[in-house]
Amino acid sequence: MNRKVQADPDPGSAGLVEKQFYTFAHPPQQMVLESGARLGPITIAYETWGRLSEKRNNAVLVTHAFSGDSHAAGFYGGEPADAKPGWWDSMIGPGKGLDTSKYFVICANILGSCMGTTGPSSINPETGKPYGLGFPMMTIGDIIETQKVLLDYLGIDSLHTVIGGSIGGMQVLEWCVRYPEMVRSAIPVATTMRHSALAIAFNEVARQAIMGDPHWELGNYYDKTPPALGLAVARMIGHVTYLSDEAMRRKFGRQLQDKSHFSFGFDADFQVESYLRYQGSKFVKRFDANSVLYITKAADYFDLAQREAPARSLQDIRGAATKYLVVSYTSDWLYPTYQAKELVQSLKRANLDVSFCEIEADCGHDAFLIPDQRLGRLVGGFLDGVARN
Amino acid sequence: MNRKVQADPDPGSAGLVEKQFYTFAHPPQQMVLESGARLGPITIAYETWGRLSEKRNNAVLVTHAFSGDSHAAGFYGGEPADAKPGWWDSMIGPGKGLDTSKYFVICANILGSCMGTTGPSSINPETGKPYGLGFPMMTIGDIIETQKVLLDYLGIDSLHTVIGGSIGGMQVLEWCVRYPEMVRSAIPVATTMRHSALAIAFNEVARQAIMGDPHWELGNYYDKTPPALGLAVARMIGHVTYLSDEAMRRKFGRQLQDKSHFSFGFDADFQVESYLRYQGSKFVKRFDANSVLYITKAADYFDLAQREAPARSLQDIRGAATKYLVVSYTSDWLYPTYQAKELVQSLKRANLDVSFCEIEADCGHDAFLIPDQRLGRLVGGFLDGVARN
Repeated sequence: MNRKVQADPDPGSAGLVEKQFYTFAHPPQQMVLESGARLGPITIAYETWGRLSEKRNNAVLVTHAFSGDSHAAGFYGGEPADAKPGWWDSMIGPGKGLDTSKYFVICANILGSCMGTTGPSSINPETGKPYGLGFPMMTIGDIIETQKVLLDYLGIDSLHTVIGGSIGGMQVLEWCVRYPEMVRSAIPVATTMRHSALAIAFNEVARQAIMGDPHWELGNYYDKTPPALGLAVARMIGHVTYLSDEAMRRKFGRQLQDKSHFSFGFDADFQVESYLRYQGSKFVKRFDANSVLYITKAADYFDLAQREAPARSLQDIRGAATKYLVVSYTSDWLYPTYQAKELVQSLKRANLDVSFCEIEADCGHDAFLIPDQRLGRLVGGFLDGVARN
Repeated sequence: MNRKVQADPDPGSAGLVEKQFYTFAHPPQQMVLESGARLGPITIAYETWGRLSEKRNNAVLVTHAFSGDSHAAGFYGGEPADAKPGWWDSMIGPGKGLDTSKYFVICANILGSCMGTTGPSSINPETGKPYGLGFPMMTIGDIIETQKVLLDYLGIDSLHTVIGGSIGGMQVLEWCVRYPEMVRSAIPVATTMRHSALAIAFNEVARQAIMGDPHWELGNYYDKTPPALGLAVARMIGHVTYLSDEAMRRKFGRQLQDKSHFSFGFDADFQVESYLRYQGSKFVKRFDANSVLYITKAADYFDLAQREAPARSLQDIRGAATKYLVVSYTSDWLYPTYQAKELVQSLKRANLDVSFCEIEADCGHDAFLIPDQRLGRLVGGFLDGVARN
């Protein structure tokens, strides 16, 4: 891509960044997933900030949530320049929680997504057409294996930390059980060690909304009309779960859209209705419906407490040196604090070094994405402590 | 209907009951709704239990929730006899909370529904076809006016109590502001005095699921394929909100459906997924999608705190003699206890006589529908007190 380098738009910003791609083919050309299925070659889209030290020991891996991408911070150049920075720009940059003057920060788009990394909308080399439902079911563990290959390619065999929220937090935990010797510290944020029935329920309704859309056509819609209405409903369900009752009251209450009277029709009367419709229609333009199916299913399968061999559980990493900082938010009802506490207890039972912080916030699960100096300071201090050890 | 009278299947049961219908035509043949629209003639389906006293002062009106109907207790006869009694059979019968040896209990299907009372699936006399979206938008107040006409027809001008949960509770409160002189006592259960942004959000997603289904066809589907997939998704959303995180964990946890391994496909792996799919498909057989749209919108419009004249608010019934018993459930997150407390405060500020009880229960909003002697005893005692006064 032809990017025009320009002055840093913000002194605290991570600056200009470019999406990079690495395509790998495991011998024999394919990677074996947890399900036993084979997939490959696999392309991973990733971005980096800061510089890798000579000792190659200052790498930080940021793992993104459900609909995120590799663009975690800074701005893409080009004409016109981006209006908005990456999704965790408040956390990544000089002097921020993930201080790019100290750390080499990496964020890769997850397997199964549609933002550059191989997923169901990618071309299946065997057919020359998009995978669709031919894409194999994948797990959080499979996502970690693709990230491991990327780190191998970058020549990184040790991570100062792995940090991420929501499904990103599940990846953090999966890194810890798969490669404990590589992970000096781990910061799972607003997440859970096992997807609850409530979280599975919301995901299932979202999937049913997509699969119920006649345009879904068993996932084979790439050269036709996509299942936009089902995808929009799925996104609306997601957005309700990302906010809290309290945040909704503060943000919308019962405020009417643009009139002082009820419409007595099925238009959006209330601001909260318009907000959800807008979020639904915006998502349809940037995300692939099949990716929603695969990623939500991977989250539903995630259970660190109960897993069958050869998958490793917390007991298999008993006494590992990784230092944990578990973060939850008071108003998160998708992955509530009691689940973070269950995680902390399990880590302690496995004789692991764990700190826990619950942050007071009224904005629900979304809190970890909303700029807030408290998380940055907490993470910065924790990482300094890890460096000192 | 040809019903075979048989022995009472349960000594505590309200016994056999028959659905009755009353069709009324307001002069000039139509009722004027709150929106200004006219509707009529209107049929109301209702059922009764117990006997009206000679003084006609022992009537109890039960108001039903969103997808309920007039069949609140007892069994329909016929061949084969019903396997299941009405939806609040645990509350209505001899010796129960609403004791049919003392009270004459009435339950009417709400306006806009599809269980016997006029709604969008009813025939519009002007066109000879179902109303569809030609059905006028209605409010909780309009529902109360149809119930008032039914009581007039039955010769009842005083209610010992009005009781109902969820949207039924909104009807209870609307009765109190519209006809305070008729209502000796009122028991709003698991409800709110103003629909919150969160509750509106869930309703809006449900509506979008229905209206996004191509078979919806702007509500004009009665002689075609109905929008079954959208309706099923809408119902699944509802069911998630009716349960609590705690109830889901207890009921389903992460239990797999009928296998010990993940399917690595989009079948229902988890029991909670099967449960939701089953609830969705069951609802499609018994309920009309347009009724969901109208009833959810009426709930969203409900706001006792802020309303424009000529609609009456709590301040307009300042010092009325009605005695209130407000009931909430600890794990109800659709209409949480803090909202019940807001209602109690507002009633007190209007100088009204109010008692409040929060019942400890882990089954979420659905708690009021689940047989539980505590509600029955609480209501029975309260009604005895009202009778003594």
